[in-house]
Amino acid sequence: MALKGRDLLAIRDLTREEIEEVLAASRRMLPYARGQKVGAQLDGRVLTLAFFEPSTRTRLSFETAMARLGGRSVTIADSSSTSLRKGESLYDTIRVISQYGDAIVLRHPNEGAARLAARASDRPIINAGDGAGEHPTQTLIDLAAIREAYGKLTGLTVTLLGDLKYGRTVHSLARALALFGATLVLSSPPSLRLPAPVREDLDRAGIRIEEVPNVPEAVRRADVLYVTRIQRERFGDDAEYAQVAGSYRVDPPLLEGVGPKMIVLHPLPRTGEISPEVDASPHAAYFRQAFLGVPVRMALLNLILAGRSS
Amino acid sequence: MALKGRDLLAIRDLTREEIEEVLAASRRMLPYARGQKVGAQLDGRVLTLAFFEPSTRTRLSFETAMARLGGRSVTIADSSSTSLRKGESLYDTIRVISQYGDAIVLRHPNEGAARLAARASDRPIINAGDGAGEHPTQTLIDLAAIREAYGKLTGLTVTLLGDLKYGRTVHSLARALALFGATLVLSSPPSLRLPAPVREDLDRAGIRIEEVPNVPEAVRRADVLYVTRIQRERFGDDAEYAQVAGSYRVDPPLLEGVGPKMIVLHPLPRTGEISPEVDASPHAAYFRQAFLGVPVRMALLNLILAGRSS
Amino acid sequence: MALKGRDLLAIRDLTREEIEEVLAASRRMLPYARGQKVGAQLDGRVLTLAFFEPSTRTRLSFETAMARLGGRSVTIADSSSTSLRKGESLYDTIRVISQYGDAIVLRHPNEGAARLAARASDRPIINAGDGAGEHPTQTLIDLAAIREAYGKLTGLTVTLLGDLKYGRTVHSLARALALFGATLVLSSPPSLRLPAPVREDLDRAGIRIEEVPNVPEAVRRADVLYVTRIQRERFGDDAEYAQVAGSYRVDPPLLEGVGPKMIVLHPLPRTGEISPEVDASPHAAYFRQAFLGVPVRMALLNLILAGRSS
Repeated sequence: MALKGRDLLAIRDLTREEIEEVLAASRRMLPYARGQKVGAQLDGRVLTLAFFEPSTRTRLSFETAMARLGGRSVTIADSSSTSLRKGESLYDTIRVISQYGDAIVLRHPNEGAARLAARASDRPIINAGDGAGEHPTQTLIDLAAIREAYGKLTGLTVTLLGDLKYGRTVHSLARALALFGATLVLSSPPSLRLPAPVREDLDRAGIRIEEVPNVPEAVRRADVLYVTRIQRERFGDDAEYAQVAGSYRVDPPLLEGVGPKMIVLHPLPRTGEISPEVDASPHAAYFRQAFLGVPVRMALLNLILAGRSS
Repeated sequence: MALKGRDLLAIRDLTREEIEEVLAASRRMLPYARGQKVGAQLDGRVLTLAFFEPSTRTRLSFETAMARLGGRSVTIADSSSTSLRKGESLYDTIRVISQYGDAIVLRHPNEGAARLAARASDRPIINAGDGAGEHPTQTLIDLAAIREAYGKLTGLTVTLLGDLKYGRTVHSLARALALFGATLVLSSPPSLRLPAPVREDLDRAGIRIEEVPNVPEAVRRADVLYVTRIQRERFGDDAEYAQVAGSYRVDPPLLEGVGPKMIVLHPLPRTGEISPEVDASPHAAYFRQAFLGVPVRMALLNLILAGRSS
Repeated sequence: MALKGRDLLAIRDLTREEIEEVLAASRRMLPYARGQKVGAQLDGRVLTLAFFEPSTRTRLSFETAMARLGGRSVTIADSSSTSLRKGESLYDTIRVISQYGDAIVLRHPNEGAARLAARASDRPIINAGDGAGEHPTQTLIDLAAIREAYGKLTGLTVTLLGDLKYGRTVHSLARALALFGATLVLSSPPSLRLPAPVREDLDRAGIRIEEVPNVPEAVRRADVLYVTRIQRERFGDDAEYAQVAGSYRVDPPLLEGVGPKMIVLHPLPRTGEISPEVDASPHAAYFRQAFLGVPVRMALLNLILAGRSS
C-alpha cells in the first residue's frame, strides 16, 4: 500500500485492502494511544488543522494523535479569525498554509471544499468533514469499532437507525460496508429515509439491504446497531422535530433479547437517541468507538506522513 | 505521598503534608520554569485543557508547565466551539475527551462541574475553577508565594482585604492556611464580609480570626496582605460598585510603616485595588506570585501524571 | 551580531548587516522549513504568541517555525478570551505572561502596543503588527523573497503599486530598501499616495524615488513589483472603494514585455489586485513569499532565543 503523500478526501478513495491496512495499523497504535508507550514516529512532523467550522472532538483527537506520535500541530480552530474574512478565497488560504506544515486536516461547512483544497495544496489533504459531503476518518473509526468487536468486517448485519437522509456518516459507512459484504437493515422515520441516489449506489455495489421500519425488529436483527443523531437544525419546525426525534430511542428494554455480542455504535454527540442507562450495558460501544478516533487517526497520519504502519 | 493518578478537585483534597510536598516539588521546578534547564519528565504525556469559560493566564500557565517538562497539550480554549452547543451533556463530553489525553484540566462556569467531570473520567481531573466553587491550584500558588517569602507557612498573620464574600480564592486560601496555624485578619466593606458558613468552617478548623474593618490597621497587622478584586459583574448597580470599589486601594502611603518583609499578594487581574506605583515597592509580590503559577503547576502535573517530585 | 535576547519592534531596530545576517540564516533554515531535516535548535524553548487581534497566517507561520526547530508555542489567538475584558491593563497582561515563555510575539490593534509591551517584559518582544505601526517580520520576508530571486538586494528597482497611504508593509519595506540602495517607483491612485512624512524620511535616507502614476509604465520599470491590497475598511463609501480598487489590477496582459526575471510580490491576502491567472506565471512569487514566512521566522527565533544562526 502506498498511502504516503496521498489525500484522503472520501472513503471511496480507499480500496478494501487499504481500509484493512489502516485498521491493522490502528491496532498497533493502541499502546501508544493509551499512553502505555511513547511514540516518536512523527518526530519533526507538523500537521496543520484548518477547521473552518468548529468540531472539538475531531480536532482534539487529531491533535492527540499527532502528540502521541511525537509530532506537532498548528491549528485554526474556527474561521472567525482568518483572512477569509478579508475576502480571501479558500484556494489562496489553503495554498499559503499548505506550505507551512506537512499535511492539512480540513473541516469546512461547504461540500466540495476538500476537493478544492486538494487542488490548491502540494501536501496531503485529509478531509475531516465538508458539509453534506464526506468525513472519511469517521467511517474508518466506525469500521475499527466493528472490527474490534467481531474480529472481522465480513458477513455482519448492520442496522442503521435514525436519520438516514441527512446523516453523512451513515452514507459513507454504508458504502464502506458494501466492500465487505455486510447486510444492511435500514430503520428510519418515513421522512428521513435513505436518499434514492445513495440507495442506488449501494444496490449497484451489491450489498443486501432491507428496510425494517419496526424499530424493535430492526434492533433484533442487528450484529451492529448504528444509531444517528437527528439534527434539530434540519427541521424548520420544532413540533415536527419533536415528533421525529421521539419516534425512536435506544433504552434497556429495547435491548432485551439481543444477541450477547451485539454492539451499539453512535458517532456522538448524542442528544436523546440513546438513554444514559444504556451506558452501563455490555452492548454500549459508542464511548469505545470515540476513543478509537485516536489510534485510527494515528495510523492514518503515520501512513500518510511517514509511510509507516507501526 | 501518592498524588499519582488522583483528581484535584478542591484544596481540601490535600493534606497538610501533601501541600508541603507540592510546594517542595515546585521549588525544584524553578530552573525548568525559568528556562535554565530543559525538562523531559513528561515526554510523551498529553494534557487536555477543557476551558468552558476563558481564563487566559490559567490556561497559558498550564500549557507552559507541560511544555517546560517536555509534554504536550491539546486545548479547548472556550466553549463556543463544542458539542455542548449541539445539546450534548457535560458528562458525555468529558467521558469522550478523557479517553484522549492523560489528564484533564477543567475550567467551567458552574459550581460542581469538576466533581461531575471526575465521575465521567477514568483519568485525573484537575479543577481550574468551577464557578463559585473551587480553584485549588490558585491556592497552591498563593501558598507557594508566602512560603517563598518567609521560608515557612506557620505562625504568620495574613490579612485578607477586599471582597471576602464572593472571592472564591480567599475562601480556599483561608481553609488552607487553617492547616498551618495562621492568624487571619479580615478587612472588607460591610456588604462583602466573609459568608457565615465559611466563617464557621474556619472556626471549627481552629484558625484565629480577627475582623479589622479599618484598612490601615489591618495592613499594619499583616505579614501577608492578600488583596482581591471586586468583581464589577457582581453588582447590579454601577453606583454601588463604585462606592465599594473606592473603599480600599493599596498605594504607597498605605504601605508606609509596614514591616520590611511584608508582602502584597493579589490573584490578578487587578483593576484599581493596587496602585501601579506599588509595583516598584519591595513589598509587591503579586507578579512573582503570577510567575509561580508555572512551577507550581509543573510540580502538580509531574506528581499526578508521573508520580515524580523532581 | 547579537540579536540574542533583543526585542524586534520595528525594522529600523536592525542595521543593514543584521538584516543580511537574518536573511543568510533564513536560507540555512530552508531544509528544516520544508521538513527535509528535523530541527532541535529550540528544544525546550517556549514561545508565547499574544494575538490581541486575529492574524491566522502570521500566527501559524510563527507556530510552525517553532515546531520545525523543536520548540513549543502557547497561544492567545484572539483577545476575546483575556483578562483585558476584566479591565486589566495591557501592561499587567504582558508583565504576567512574559514570565511564562522565553519570548512574546505580539499582535495588537493599537500602534505603540509593542513598545509598551517591551517596557512590561523582561523577555524579548517580537512585534507581529501593531495597528498602523510596524510589522518588521513581514518586511524581512519581503526582503528574503527579493534576495532569493536576485541573489542580492542592491541596485534593484522596486515598484510599489496600490495603496501607499495606509499600507503599513510598504512603508517598512521602503525604509529597509533605502539601506540597500534600491530605486523606488511609486504608483498609486491619487488618494492613496505615500504620506509626506514617510516620503521625507526616505528622501533623507538617500533612496531614489520616482512617482509613475501610469501603471503599465511603472510595471515595465520594475525588477520587483510589490502589490498591496486596498483595504475596504479604510473607505467609508463603497462607491469610492470600488473606483479606487478598480484602478489597478495585475493580469497577464499587464505583464507582457516585462523582463524575464521580474517578480510580483504581495503580502497577501489579496482580493482583486492580482488576477488568479497570474498564479501560473513565472513572475508570480507571492506564494513563495508567503512560504518564506516560515524560514525567516525560524531564523529570527533561533537568533533571538538561542543566539544561533543555523
